[in-house]
Amino acid sequence: MLVDGKPYRTVWLESAARSVGIIDQRKLPFSFETVELTSTEETASAILEMYVRGAGCIGAVAAHGMYLASEECREKGLSSVDFDECFRKKGNELCATRPTAVNLEWAVNRQIEAVREKDSADEKVQIARDLARIISDEDATWCKQIGEHGLDLIRSLLSNKESGDPVNILTHCNAGWLAFVDHGSATSPIYAAHDAGIPVHVWVDETRPRNQGARLTAWELGKHGVPHTVIPDNTGGHLMQHGMVDLVITGTDRTTHTGDVANKIGTYLKALAAKDNGIPFYVALPSSTIDWETRDGVAGVPIEKRGSEEVAMVSGVTDEKIYEETDVWIVSPGSPVANYAFDVTPSRLVTGLITERGICEASESAIHALFPEK
Amino acid sequence: MLVDGKPYRTVWLESAARSVGIIDQRKLPFSFETVELTSTEETASAILEMYVRGAGCIGAVAAHGMYLASEECREKGLSSVDFDECFRKKGNELCATRPTAVNLEWAVNRQIEAVREKDSADEKVQIARDLARIISDEDATWCKQIGEHGLDLIRSLLSNKESGDPVNILTHCNAGWLAFVDHGSATSPIYAAHDAGIPVHVWVDETRPRNQGARLTAWELGKHGVPHTVIPDNTGGHLMQHGMVDLVITGTDRTTHTGDVANKIGTYLKALAAKDNGIPFYVALPSSTIDWETRDGVAGVPIEKRGSEEVAMVSGVTDEKIYEETDVWIVSPGSPVANYAFDVTPSRLVTGLITERGICEASESAIHALFPEK
Repeated sequence: MLVDGKPYRTVWLESAARSVGIIDQRKLPFSFETVELTSTEETASAILEMYVRGAGCIGAVAAHGMYLASEECREKGLSSVDFDECFRKKGNELCATRPTAVNLEWAVNRQIEAVREKDSADEKVQIARDLARIISDEDATWCKQIGEHGLDLIRSLLSNKESGDPVNILTHCNAGWLAFVDHGSATSPIYAAHDAGIPVHVWVDETRPRNQGARLTAWELGKHGVPHTVIPDNTGGHLMQHGMVDLVITGTDRTTHTGDVANKIGTYLKALAAKDNGIPFYVALPSSTIDWETRDGVAGVPIEKRGSEEVAMVSGVTDEKIYEETDVWIVSPGSPVANYAFDVTPSRLVTGLITERGICEASESAIHALFPEK
Repeated sequence: MLVDGKPYRTVWLESAARSVGIIDQRKLPFSFETVELTSTEETASAILEMYVRGAGCIGAVAAHGMYLASEECREKGLSSVDFDECFRKKGNELCATRPTAVNLEWAVNRQIEAVREKDSADEKVQIARDLARIISDEDATWCKQIGEHGLDLIRSLLSNKESGDPVNILTHCNAGWLAFVDHGSATSPIYAAHDAGIPVHVWVDETRPRNQGARLTAWELGKHGVPHTVIPDNTGGHLMQHGMVDLVITGTDRTTHTGDVANKIGTYLKALAAKDNGIPFYVALPSSTIDWETRDGVAGVPIEKRGSEEVAMVSGVTDEKIYEETDVWIVSPGSPVANYAFDVTPSRLVTGLITERGICEASESAIHALFPEK
């Protein structure tokens, strides 16, 4: 999407050989800096140190890291078998950085499989380079399709509004293009509507404890020119009671094939408020995040407990003009702190799922009807 | 309540003449400092600069400020009529500090009325000094009675627990003793249960944007020795889904006589989650905060919109051991921010109200039955 008028993705091949570009997302929103990766090792560091985050984005960056790995293996003048072994080892290095990131391992393995089919090192490198781009394009296409399906939904809500009034959409956390390659999941319908000239305004939950809404979603929307307002996570219910929200769209980390939605902690509270006020609550997702095994999301999806310092300490800048983050402690010293990362919204509170294939009810039958091959 | 083993109130007469003690609540939880007020002017500054906050607390501090005012008027050697005029003017100075604080004006007017009934300056001063103490004691007594009624409720929940397991209570914002003279409203049943040897554990919502939970409620509970855990406001729903909350108790800024509860923004979301999970949701209040006019709280209670910097900027310390607060900006620069201070929880979501007279349903008939004189 746009950053100061220039289109960006979260990862790209630099025109110079052997070089991959990413955004150092750790510094957002206070500083926009791109970084050039020139080796597997640098790619692994960038993933480990969270220059990039978000399932789709990590997968695509890893795919590009594997292209850099292929260049390094070619340099060694190895036989085809030894090249593949070299390539596999470098893939392991990448996978070790974030062991629970499913997309990372998936992208690495796809590269390993693809490269094995060619004999010459040059062909292997070409394959790896092409596949990095393909994996990125696929992710961007899925997200774009989510946007197209969601656009119809937003357009249908516009007919209920006074002429010129925007469709007010509330979102939680960052399910934006920064977490994918482009467009994002929850944000994709919003960008599609905005780009189609439909007036939209987004209520951005700040999303404690890590403030991904206030930092990343607000930055994304601002840079693309989408009107938005940042609010504390406590605010959504009040806005919904007073007719100030027309639609809620969130992303998801994992959705069961029965329609239960695991997402950033606090999503469930917004879904309850939407239900109580008759406001549609949609979840946008590429189907790769559907869990085809778990039946009961509340009972079955394990919820990560993270370190207490993420809650007790807040990062920000003392001067908006200078990028230098300071951490401040905000909790009474000595008080214990708990940090549950996700919650599960039961399917009964979810109006529908917006996938790359279309929109369906959050029910087992509707999900399987849309993905009959599963 | 206790601070490091020593009982405190939020305001007290120092044994030395013409001196009133308060806690500088702005520095909590990082530094516990008491301040001696020796004049009306100092009292007005302390209220204006929010050394003290919370309806009950402000009223009692103002009552004590009026005692200091009476000393100042006596010093001038005025006639009874001129004393009363001097006293009234000083009352106006106090009232001007926080014009919307109903308890402030109420306490000041009560002092003005009382002093008028005596002729000699010495008697007037004695009246003002006694009334300051009476107003404090009344506030503390109401809160203590709330605690006694709530204690029965907590005791009844204990019977559902495994032996030794605590009753888990979730609270939002600070409706603690720091906001009153002693005991607090929402915290009073908790302190009563803890002091009675009933095992309790409190989930403390950090309460964005001003973090009164993480700062004040956590500090209070910690100093009194009550087990507690600070959580982001997003967390309560997840805890309730998983049987980790037995009871929710919040305070209120204003409750309609039909049972709708205006309280800190985000209270409504917790009430929805409690309802969805069959968990009792109680609101503790001295009856002075009941609004006997408004029928529909959601439509009728005006919701204050406060400055965006309260959301965009977070205060904390960079070193837990040194009291020096730093403000950091946490929102993407240029992004608009909205800050609604309160929301309204409809009576249908409120299990009951805990008042100084007892517990009643959050309904017009039950409230009027408990307060038939209204």
